[in-house]
Amino acid sequence: MAVGPVSLEFFPVPGVRLAATAAGLKKSGGLDAVLFEFAPESRTAGIFTRSLFAAAPVQVARDHLQRAAPRYFLINSGNANAATGQAGVMDAETCCSAVSQQTGSSPDETIPFSTGVIGERLPVERLTNAISQLRDGLDENNWLIAATGIMTTDTRPKIASRRFNVEDKTVTITGIAKGAGMIAPNMATMLAYVATDAAAEAGLLQDLLTAAGERSFNRITVDSDTSTNDACMLTATGVSGVDLSDDAALAVFVPELDSLMLELAQGLVRDGEGATKFVTVTVEGGASESDCLGIAFSIANSPLMKTALFASDANWGRIVMAIGKAGVPADPARIDVYLGDVCLMKGGGKNPDYREEQGAAVMTGEEITIRVDLNSGTCSGTVWTSDLSHDYVTINADYRT
Amino acid sequence: MAVGPVSLEFFPVPGVRLAATAAGLKKSGGLDAVLFEFAPESRTAGIFTRSLFAAAPVQVARDHLQRAAPRYFLINSGNANAATGQAGVMDAETCCSAVSQQTGSSPDETIPFSTGVIGERLPVERLTNAISQLRDGLDENNWLIAATGIMTTDTRPKIASRRFNVEDKTVTITGIAKGAGMIAPNMATMLAYVATDAAAEAGLLQDLLTAAGERSFNRITVDSDTSTNDACMLTATGVSGVDLSDDAALAVFVPELDSLMLELAQGLVRDGEGATKFVTVTVEGGASESDCLGIAFSIANSPLMKTALFASDANWGRIVMAIGKAGVPADPARIDVYLGDVCLMKGGGKNPDYREEQGAAVMTGEEITIRVDLNSGTCSGTVWTSDLSHDYVTINADYRT
Repeated sequence: MAVGPVSLEFFPVPGVRLAATAAGLKKSGGLDAVLFEFAPESRTAGIFTRSLFAAAPVQVARDHLQRAAPRYFLINSGNANAATGQAGVMDAETCCSAVSQQTGSSPDETIPFSTGVIGERLPVERLTNAISQLRDGLDENNWLIAATGIMTTDTRPKIASRRFNVEDKTVTITGIAKGAGMIAPNMATMLAYVATDAAAEAGLLQDLLTAAGERSFNRITVDSDTSTNDACMLTATGVSGVDLSDDAALAVFVPELDSLMLELAQGLVRDGEGATKFVTVTVEGGASESDCLGIAFSIANSPLMKTALFASDANWGRIVMAIGKAGVPADPARIDVYLGDVCLMKGGGKNPDYREEQGAAVMTGEEITIRVDLNSGTCSGTVWTSDLSHDYVTINADYRT
Repeated sequence: MAVGPVSLEFFPVPGVRLAATAAGLKKSGGLDAVLFEFAPESRTAGIFTRSLFAAAPVQVARDHLQRAAPRYFLINSGNANAATGQAGVMDAETCCSAVSQQTGSSPDETIPFSTGVIGERLPVERLTNAISQLRDGLDENNWLIAATGIMTTDTRPKIASRRFNVEDKTVTITGIAKGAGMIAPNMATMLAYVATDAAAEAGLLQDLLTAAGERSFNRITVDSDTSTNDACMLTATGVSGVDLSDDAALAVFVPELDSLMLELAQGLVRDGEGATKFVTVTVEGGASESDCLGIAFSIANSPLMKTALFASDANWGRIVMAIGKAGVPADPARIDVYLGDVCLMKGGGKNPDYREEQGAAVMTGEEITIRVDLNSGTCSGTVWTSDLSHDYVTINADYRT
């Protein structure tokens, strides 16, 4: 069960073709292999997990991205190729070579991605056997089946799309993402692929992606656990003829990219494992943005807060607890706490006008906003999270069995 | 359901008398008020929560401890008197004054403690009305009912006791503790009261308590959430005539105190909310103890690791994930991981000799040891935790309703 409606509409991106197939990596027999192809002259930027145990494909991706502008992404679900040592790196390289042979490109021009169970060797042959079929199926209309092919415990595909004009030219941005558990902000979370037909050189593209990632994927948490395979990619094909080195074009493009990436990131939270609530946590009136984010993440990651949200219990004592443990200096006597528009706490103590029914009424909704005002500055920060439900435990107690 | 057998035996501590009663703070009608009385000349040390929202009684306790050597502790369960602002501080002071009037002591000689729901005013009158009854019931044999009176979501009382000789004299240490949720290391966790009939001046006592707390309560976690009311107290009545300023006596005393406090701390984990497993996480071969503890806590606090433990699933990929996200520098290619005596991971990849049945066999036990060897140094660190079960969600989704 995910929170909120799902939109599956998208615009194809000129210069990008995709395909998905069932290569036999998922026991279910579902789609588990995806190929992206980008037009020549495309440029790509990436941000990756900060985990010490960055998976083999992440290591290879970083390397290939240094060496060449990617023409292909080969993505598999069902196996993370993580904690597989040097053998795992060779497996990922073998897959890239297979794409190279089937497409006449260089092995460095393919970037590999994997998501699924950690610690098992990748079934390389199943994946390489599927490549000719993937190549033959490449089509610019395949974004939705690609979004389905990268899913693991996700209950629905995540896709977002924007089309807008820059002067007389049309620009498209479309992206897909996957991830429902092991979601915590540390670079991009799990896998996300965004492409546009605008043109940009690689350095600018990296700056745009890093900034947009900081405001979207790095502001969400489902369970505070960070994946070994996180990757978020932004590719610019340039086919539209709109160049982002032009400041006017950039000014139109950036808000569209930001809103698309935030939609994808929030889509992960809405489909967070076992999620029954979509929760926005805003902390304002702080001395710095990082202070505000520190408190917001402390609230968003607290198991006691998350179980109270699941129970639709306006247990504001747990908000207080989570503020208290955040390790951020603040004056308790100045802190106000709101649930939706209802003021629960005023100046560090219970708001005398607050009645339990008011909090309970807000909590009946699927979309909840918690707002903390530190009343000590002008900075703010917002993060998004889900609740901790019985289904989270069920999903994660059963995942491998 | 708690993990492992419970021992309820104890030795009374000469110079300490206790009483417990039902003052009407708990809806259940159970024991919820406890009074400790210490012999004149007793000395007391305390360690408290580092939460920004330290509860009113914690604020008063710190203040009174500066002013006088405590003669009384007044403890209530059912209400935390936290996030109650200046009114809460006055409420706690009123309770101390009531003890003072009933006992002929100074108000500063009473220390108040509260545990329970956050954000509600303390029902002061109910508590003060119970004080004469508590005073009349004081008895050195009441440790177990006191341990019961401080419980909230605990399923069983926690009590530990040691009796040993220092030369020809007998020394006793007895302690009680409470806590099952909102348990994370940040000073002492929840409430713990330890008393001995050894003699010690306040400075030495504080050093002993801080060191023992670091090795016990600060090494456990149930859910990574830190309480507003944590307090751990150590009182020395001196009645035995053994003075800890004597180095030989101290050398006998310290290991006994350490083992008692570790037993109490582990007792909290064994009774952790919804716990079905008692888990020891040891990280060794690190460059520093803090590196080792950083990784150990990352494993112990990971919701994905905890749900795998609940499912008795030897999902070592989640151990890898938790090591990877800890933010501790280490060389993945040198890391070995053991479950019990079974080596799962060798040099950063799956141990080729490992078979799933071996891990599954270890996981069937109630007491699990996870051991990580970083193979990069001589330091180590151990923490204790429980699993994340459906009952954890149920208990915390229903706590106020």
